[in-house]
Amino acid sequence: MSITVVGSIAYDTVKTPFGERERMLGGAAVHFALAASFFDEVHVVGPVGEDFGEPQLEVMRSRGIDVSDIERVAGGKTFFWQGEYGWDLNSRETLDTQLGVFEGFQPKLSPSSLASDVLFLANIQPDLQRDVRAQLPQARFVALDSMDLWINIARDSLVAAIEGVDCVILNDAELRQLTGKPNLVAAAREILSWGQGGSDGGGRGPSVIVAKQGEYGAALVTRDGFFALPAYPLESVIDPTGAGDTFAGGLIGYIAAHPEEELSDELLRRAMAHATVLASFNVEEFGTERVERLTGNEIVSRIKELQAMTQFSGAPLSLRG
Amino acid sequence: MSITVVGSIAYDTVKTPFGERERMLGGAAVHFALAASFFDEVHVVGPVGEDFGEPQLEVMRSRGIDVSDIERVAGGKTFFWQGEYGWDLNSRETLDTQLGVFEGFQPKLSPSSLASDVLFLANIQPDLQRDVRAQLPQARFVALDSMDLWINIARDSLVAAIEGVDCVILNDAELRQLTGKPNLVAAAREILSWGQGGSDGGGRGPSVIVAKQGEYGAALVTRDGFFALPAYPLESVIDPTGAGDTFAGGLIGYIAAHPEEELSDELLRRAMAHATVLASFNVEEFGTERVERLTGNEIVSRIKELQAMTQFSGAPLSLRG
Repeated sequence: MSITVVGSIAYDTVKTPFGERERMLGGAAVHFALAASFFDEVHVVGPVGEDFGEPQLEVMRSRGIDVSDIERVAGGKTFFWQGEYGWDLNSRETLDTQLGVFEGFQPKLSPSSLASDVLFLANIQPDLQRDVRAQLPQARFVALDSMDLWINIARDSLVAAIEGVDCVILNDAELRQLTGKPNLVAAAREILSWGQGGSDGGGRGPSVIVAKQGEYGAALVTRDGFFALPAYPLESVIDPTGAGDTFAGGLIGYIAAHPEEELSDELLRRAMAHATVLASFNVEEFGTERVERLTGNEIVSRIKELQAMTQFSGAPLSLRG
Repeated sequence: MSITVVGSIAYDTVKTPFGERERMLGGAAVHFALAASFFDEVHVVGPVGEDFGEPQLEVMRSRGIDVSDIERVAGGKTFFWQGEYGWDLNSRETLDTQLGVFEGFQPKLSPSSLASDVLFLANIQPDLQRDVRAQLPQARFVALDSMDLWINIARDSLVAAIEGVDCVILNDAELRQLTGKPNLVAAAREILSWGQGGSDGGGRGPSVIVAKQGEYGAALVTRDGFFALPAYPLESVIDPTGAGDTFAGGLIGYIAAHPEEELSDELLRRAMAHATVLASFNVEEFGTERVERLTGNEIVSRIKELQAMTQFSGAPLSLRG
């Protein structure tokens, strides 16, 4: 089967303490698709301007990604973002955002994008997320990302969008902001109670909450349990741009690649591990540079390392008291 | 054998979004000792004033802690701290600090405290940490904690103190500040290179770096590897005061309880798990309330849960590329 992703395709100008790049290939849909392409066929839906280059399309095509639903808008300019990161990469300042063709974007999905059984709604206006989600009513697994902007200005629509998906992937600060609950577990439990029999997407409501925690890793909350993984430790992180979408690509890609398997916590944990590893490669170099030349063997090798780094034995001990 | 801890014994007045308490039993040495008392005998070294109560001593005695090196200073006042936490408990403001008898404190160790094979130097002036460490030259395992204040005003002495211990336990922000390295792994590696043949404590230098990461858990860096554990997930956290020292008590206590075992990464990982679990109980209620009535069975049960929450299987997968 295949995965459809709807989201931004961008040029990013990024400065970190370790260097800078101008007008790199970027955008949520691109980072997601490159990561997910290791697991399944990916259809990318999003707009670009006349300034978008053939070499950038070729980066995606060379990973087997279907770019036929990337809409080139005549006379338009590709979404542009410019940002600079602080010394520990945990803070970043947006210096410029030019929506270009992303303003007024109306997703158009071809029959092949509509036929996917897995859908990822990257961070776009929640009304658009709901519109696309409604076009794939039979999708087996649907996930969405969002951001503080939509929580601030379009919360009701975002909540309705969340009620129509299976999986919510947000930064942990966004989960707190969205629910007003300061505690991560309580925030996730709140969202798990949404959409039971609601109006959107069949009314099953989300069953998987993923909290992205940046350099600290990520946590998974389901009705059955809790799981957390640290980020893969790197001595040198160069550029975190796109890490969250690369993480989502690894997670959703892994789930898409296991259509016969029940969506158990055990499957989701393996998906979290692959997400963590994909994100770790993304941040090692600027933009898509590292993931472009990543191999399946490198992923498998780092999964084994991550597993070794998170194990401990439960040797029995007689405690005093 | 036994553990000696040198550090503060305090009264804490704490306000969190979930309530407040006045003049609770607190202090680094107290939180450490209560946690470590589940694993081994603990000797507490520190000063109190004439205002320090018998019931507070009894809290420690009832956990089998040796309080005979708690020095009651005639006419003195016990160290007092007052603070208030923000809504998500990740920020706190110190409203009042009264050093009292802690000002001018000169640790005096009795023969039984000097005979311990494990030593924890809680957060005190680094010159004092070095002085105490030098009094236990044969100790099998010595760890220290510190804080941003000492990094700012006594960095050279702190570095010398670190060169004389086996294990450094700091918040990750403090590790970055101490080394000037923004990356946790790089910061830890830097500290692991200190004190090889240096002047203090036999010149073996630290071999174990533990980064406390608050609600995100903790990471362990040794020359052999990396390990990280999430915090035990709680839907309700009431008061984080003392969590770091309780964590240290679980960690050092577990190591102290295994004198015959080589200090391997495998042992340290089990110690990290016990530290994580002890800290999780500490934050469930104010001050020492929860740990005072904690049982060994509760610890064992939560260790098993934590182990289950951090496991994933490494099912092989054929990747595309």
